[in-house]
Amino acid sequence: MMLNPVTDAFAATLRARLPEAAFRPLTPAYLQEPRGRFHGSGGLLVCPGSTPEVVVLMRACAAARVGIVPYGGGTGLVGGQIMTDGPAPVILSLERMRAIRGVFAQENALVAEAGAILAEVQAAAAAQGRLFPLTLASEGSARIGGCLSTNAGGVNVLRYGNARDLCLGLEAVLPDGSVLNGLTRLRKDNTGYDLRNLLIGAEGTLGVITAAALKLYPQPEAEGAALMVVESPAAALALLSMAGRRIGGGVSGFELIGRMGLQFLAEKMPEIRQPFAEMPGWMVLIDLGLGAGQDPAAALEGLFAEAAEAGLVSDGVIAQSVAQRAAFWDIRERIPEANRKIGSVSSHDISLPLSVIPEFIARGGPALARIGDFRINCFGHLGDGNLHYNVFPAAGKTRAAYEHLRGAVKRCVHDLVHDMGGSVSAEHGVGRFKVEDLERYGDPAKLAAMRAIKGALDPLGIMNPGAVLRQG
Amino acid sequence: MMLNPVTDAFAATLRARLPEAAFRPLTPAYLQEPRGRFHGSGGLLVCPGSTPEVVVLMRACAAARVGIVPYGGGTGLVGGQIMTDGPAPVILSLERMRAIRGVFAQENALVAEAGAILAEVQAAAAAQGRLFPLTLASEGSARIGGCLSTNAGGVNVLRYGNARDLCLGLEAVLPDGSVLNGLTRLRKDNTGYDLRNLLIGAEGTLGVITAAALKLYPQPEAEGAALMVVESPAAALALLSMAGRRIGGGVSGFELIGRMGLQFLAEKMPEIRQPFAEMPGWMVLIDLGLGAGQDPAAALEGLFAEAAEAGLVSDGVIAQSVAQRAAFWDIRERIPEANRKIGSVSSHDISLPLSVIPEFIARGGPALARIGDFRINCFGHLGDGNLHYNVFPAAGKTRAAYEHLRGAVKRCVHDLVHDMGGSVSAEHGVGRFKVEDLERYGDPAKLAAMRAIKGALDPLGIMNPGAVLRQG
Repeated sequence: MMLNPVTDAFAATLRARLPEAAFRPLTPAYLQEPRGRFHGSGGLLVCPGSTPEVVVLMRACAAARVGIVPYGGGTGLVGGQIMTDGPAPVILSLERMRAIRGVFAQENALVAEAGAILAEVQAAAAAQGRLFPLTLASEGSARIGGCLSTNAGGVNVLRYGNARDLCLGLEAVLPDGSVLNGLTRLRKDNTGYDLRNLLIGAEGTLGVITAAALKLYPQPEAEGAALMVVESPAAALALLSMAGRRIGGGVSGFELIGRMGLQFLAEKMPEIRQPFAEMPGWMVLIDLGLGAGQDPAAALEGLFAEAAEAGLVSDGVIAQSVAQRAAFWDIRERIPEANRKIGSVSSHDISLPLSVIPEFIARGGPALARIGDFRINCFGHLGDGNLHYNVFPAAGKTRAAYEHLRGAVKRCVHDLVHDMGGSVSAEHGVGRFKVEDLERYGDPAKLAAMRAIKGALDPLGIMNPGAVLRQG
Repeated sequence: MMLNPVTDAFAATLRARLPEAAFRPLTPAYLQEPRGRFHGSGGLLVCPGSTPEVVVLMRACAAARVGIVPYGGGTGLVGGQIMTDGPAPVILSLERMRAIRGVFAQENALVAEAGAILAEVQAAAAAQGRLFPLTLASEGSARIGGCLSTNAGGVNVLRYGNARDLCLGLEAVLPDGSVLNGLTRLRKDNTGYDLRNLLIGAEGTLGVITAAALKLYPQPEAEGAALMVVESPAAALALLSMAGRRIGGGVSGFELIGRMGLQFLAEKMPEIRQPFAEMPGWMVLIDLGLGAGQDPAAALEGLFAEAAEAGLVSDGVIAQSVAQRAAFWDIRERIPEANRKIGSVSSHDISLPLSVIPEFIARGGPALARIGDFRINCFGHLGDGNLHYNVFPAAGKTRAAYEHLRGAVKRCVHDLVHDMGGSVSAEHGVGRFKVEDLERYGDPAKLAAMRAIKGALDPLGIMNPGAVLRQG
């Protein structure tokens, strides 16, 4: 099943069948990913203006056996949007299909084309007093199609779920050019196999999502946040459990932040105000969104009092204003930026069963110390069991000095995660970066079933060749 | 791809490979479904005691091309568990695999074998102060494997989602006898295609679920309920939206009940106390589960006051005790029993986009009146857009008098649902009862993709032959 490259003749065929507006210059942005680890080698950028135009394109590619690399906002971190080798593909961007087709406020639903920017979807919901809760650092450029194809996560997963949980229905073009008309706004529909969730998270290897019906939520009537100093990750978990019992579904975020993250902020971004006079070993950011007549500050005070009584927290600060809540979140959200300024040896997007997280953190440091001298910044979405476990050079050393250890570090962390029942890709996906990891750690029966499904739906292997599954 | 019947020789082969305990008498219960519309014609009942025994069974069936009909609690309403014709199959029951393998209270997770009874899972969670929210009329006999295979719904979907949303991971045996080891307790895992959701709702046609990791929730600290009289279904929807805005995630149930349901109760179960002196045209049952320090009665009073001000509600009663809340639910939950005593011409488990429900109800009566003289009992999970729309003989007439109209009634209702963007199977699934409906109303691209997936994962067609998809 060798694919053919885009040739001048093939490009001419496409130009004859699609409007001129569908052809845009292939600027370098389409050939690189944010961390600079993947570089595309060329191809033809095609930007259809409608679902029928996507059909025309995909049929032509299937007939000519030309690969198609779907490209959303270009913010993926695992190279799913960049084909690094092989015959030059069509790069398919839905950037011209960005309409919000409808907001159904009473239904708490919104229908958007795949090229809509996440922030635009959030704004369209907010304009009608609703919340689209998917919230990511890259929301200003990520597109809904990419968010769904990668099953994006972010900071609100604890309460509202990931992209998968926020999708009611999909329209998609399958590799044979047929259109899956699943743009339902139904909350319940048990008529046949769940193709929606199969396409979500398939990273463009089974078809191209062209539009989606998304879930909205009421906007919380009252929001609040607190930072609480905890003795240990185990205490943080006990606090999470207590918060769930006391506040239930009102807990929107529960983020773990360690001393290393605060030190990196102090070192690289001293303008950010540190929340505690003495830098704590561990702290959590708790965010609440409550209904009418409820008082987030009071709920957080009650939680703190019970947690202090139980010996779980030793200090805390509750946001007294919208600005202070934003400042708390700013601490959390600028840690990745500080990380980039320090420069990691290896970064890991992992998840674990909640109860083993303390043990993982306890074992991770010593395991890495056997390889070299590192600083570890472990932080992230504790409520989801999702840690960003990033490994940095020791103070005063350069990233280059660790280049030869990068593979061993990744292997060490991922082996430990796998041994403890975790995932080596919690929210970023497989792309091309983690194809080997999937082969190493993935369940053999799952991989065989995935290959069978890929073969059944995309027998020519034209969709995002080499992503998720090695090209056959 | 003709299948072979279970022969004495094949049965002997199985007896040689599996322990004696795996063979139980095939009592009539395994060959009939609750409404009596499907009757199996025979087969061999096999009840493996472990996942490896399931593997042995499925490999033997694949080698001999013998069909396998998975059987859970036998409570499905669409004949998915009953093979009515074709070569005698193996009937596979996991009734001996009913262990709760573990409760992970701090993680809000529980791992159960597929044969565990839903009520047992609920009890195991409750014993550790947690809630497993899946709640069905048949929870005393439905098994977790069946609940997941059919993506069961119930009365708590509005808040907690359906069975799909309550599953973290699956162990399953695929048609080739390979074991999918996906029994993860992770909240986030983006490593490859979503086979979990593909198996959930596949009604046993792609493999057999043997165990599941399930989501638990904190038990609400305070519960409450109210019945409110609404002017119309449109007013009920506006009240739902208001409740969402005021109370957010605290709304656990929002059920619509019409006058016909109350009349049926009065006629067939006069011991049930009617909630209002004058039988209302429409009323809703609103159920709340709130956190510590919150007062459900106060929340419901506040909602009623705002709704009355807006002209949405004309009367209401708020439960003043646990017993009264139970009595409210009893009204809702005994309507299906009253329906059975009346005897429907045709019953429909439909869903619609929330905002078109009033129009659907307005159009349904006149459309049916053109066919005959009926009584319609429309009730159900309004919060999910899921109505049970059941059509009965006119007062004083018998069901038998309408036998010839049954097909026309079903077609009339389903055509209208389909025209209005709804689903003809919201929560009960396809089974064998709705195979034709799926062919008539299903998206052609979806059906083609389903057939391709079925062919890829079960090329011999041994899994639940004739369910969901017509046997090829």
